[in-house]
Amino acid sequence: MIIDGKQAAAELRKQLSVQVDQLQQEKNIIPGLTVILVGEDPASEVYVRNKVRQTRELGMNSNEIRLPADTGEAELLARLEQLNRDSEVHGILVQLPLPAHIDEARILAAIDPQKDVDGFHALNSGRLFNGSGDALVPCTPQGCVILAKRHLGNDLNGKHAVVIGRSNIVGKPVAILLLQENCTVTIAHSRTENLAGLCRQADILVAAVGRPHFVRGDWIKPGATVIDVGINRIADAGGKSRLVGDVDYQAAVEVAGAITPVPGGVGPMTIACLLKNTLAAARRYG
Amino acid sequence: MIIDGKQAAAELRKQLSVQVDQLQQEKNIIPGLTVILVGEDPASEVYVRNKVRQTRELGMNSNEIRLPADTGEAELLARLEQLNRDSEVHGILVQLPLPAHIDEARILAAIDPQKDVDGFHALNSGRLFNGSGDALVPCTPQGCVILAKRHLGNDLNGKHAVVIGRSNIVGKPVAILLLQENCTVTIAHSRTENLAGLCRQADILVAAVGRPHFVRGDWIKPGATVIDVGINRIADAGGKSRLVGDVDYQAAVEVAGAITPVPGGVGPMTIACLLKNTLAAARRYG
Repeated sequence: MIIDGKQAAAELRKQLSVQVDQLQQEKNIIPGLTVILVGEDPASEVYVRNKVRQTRELGMNSNEIRLPADTGEAELLARLEQLNRDSEVHGILVQLPLPAHIDEARILAAIDPQKDVDGFHALNSGRLFNGSGDALVPCTPQGCVILAKRHLGNDLNGKHAVVIGRSNIVGKPVAILLLQENCTVTIAHSRTENLAGLCRQADILVAAVGRPHFVRGDWIKPGATVIDVGINRIADAGGKSRLVGDVDYQAAVEVAGAITPVPGGVGPMTIACLLKNTLAAARRYG
Repeated sequence: MIIDGKQAAAELRKQLSVQVDQLQQEKNIIPGLTVILVGEDPASEVYVRNKVRQTRELGMNSNEIRLPADTGEAELLARLEQLNRDSEVHGILVQLPLPAHIDEARILAAIDPQKDVDGFHALNSGRLFNGSGDALVPCTPQGCVILAKRHLGNDLNGKHAVVIGRSNIVGKPVAILLLQENCTVTIAHSRTENLAGLCRQADILVAAVGRPHFVRGDWIKPGATVIDVGINRIADAGGKSRLVGDVDYQAAVEVAGAITPVPGGVGPMTIACLLKNTLAAARRYG
């Protein structure tokens, strides 16, 4: 089975759209997301454009702030302070990466945790980690779990999940989410020994490495659910570029019970979960 | 090899004692720890007494606040607020468990994260999780890693660590610490399937289950390092009570490369790491 992330994202957006209407009718609140883009990274511009468009399609307010690449850290902090105080802004997203002269950690720490729809603030990480239930949870990990459940159903009890990658953005938070779903969770990474053998134990394999075709077909247990978080641009034989995941899809699709394609797998879910977080922030704190 | 936690704790305290003297000479700061005990749980009283005594032995200030079991949540919060503002108090520890009428989560969230020497505040959990380096880290997990290194040396690169238990106090934070040491980390728990087989893969096995003799000798890979976090009181054949760990020590000691005994393993390290956190808080924020 191919797990269709576009379809899953469309379904989630449809649910959210109903909930956005409800919130407006019941409490007269329209969720508002502000995205800040510093500089002119072309990939970031595409991401931001998609986020803004999809936010509006859902009936939410969307605001885009574009700042020149030489914007100072102090100015960015002042902008955030303004947005933190603005009651019509429920979600604030600073598009990463930031220019090198800006301290990313300091910026992320300056976003009001209640508006931190990326879920990268330490207070949200801690709430996720402690399972206190009031965290805004990073978007890509949320998407991974939704896609795994699309194939496996809601009960992931006792499944062995192997996560390759230990980033703050994907690897570690998806491990915690899978642990909360009662999976046994193994976190593997570049220092892991016998990675292939470890992956072969996985009922659920999450690849978040950032290396094209890193996970081979014979690393996959027959019938396993494979969630491919990688988005790598490579040149094919004809010299054209295309996007591939961290998993050797052609080989893996023959072995796996279910697998997410790239593109069209985890990617679309990430933005949908951003919209979900924005709605959640507006509901809880709006 | 038996990993001597009493000896390791004594060595750590000796180092800390030198650093306490230095801090006083260089900055005229004496680290101060305040422990709050609500009610009269006999086990808690023993813990608190030990903490207070060891704090003083190190030349730090120690203050004990005892409140009756019927103390209201509001009163406890007011006390914490006072201590948060007191510049001579660098560490605040609320002895758990609290009486049932008090919301533990609310109390832990009310401690200034800079004084949270137990490391249970969500902001400290998040900083640990994100690896930002400024976390106050829970004491027992710190002790586990120090003891593992006592046998294995400082380089834990690529070791497979299996942690049984996923509590906020031990299982999850020790998993994160081992991950930061470049271990491959598996978190197992009550829903894990084939737990014995999983444990047999472990180069480092951390048992934090709270069930006497839960881990059998034949679950242990020959030569593995076993860290036993359990402290369980059981009645022996003669009707007397004694403390045992989560691991069947008699069987495990024959197989393991190194193992912590109970008592005298992880237990003594927990208090020593509390003193370490108090010193760190005084240094950073004093």
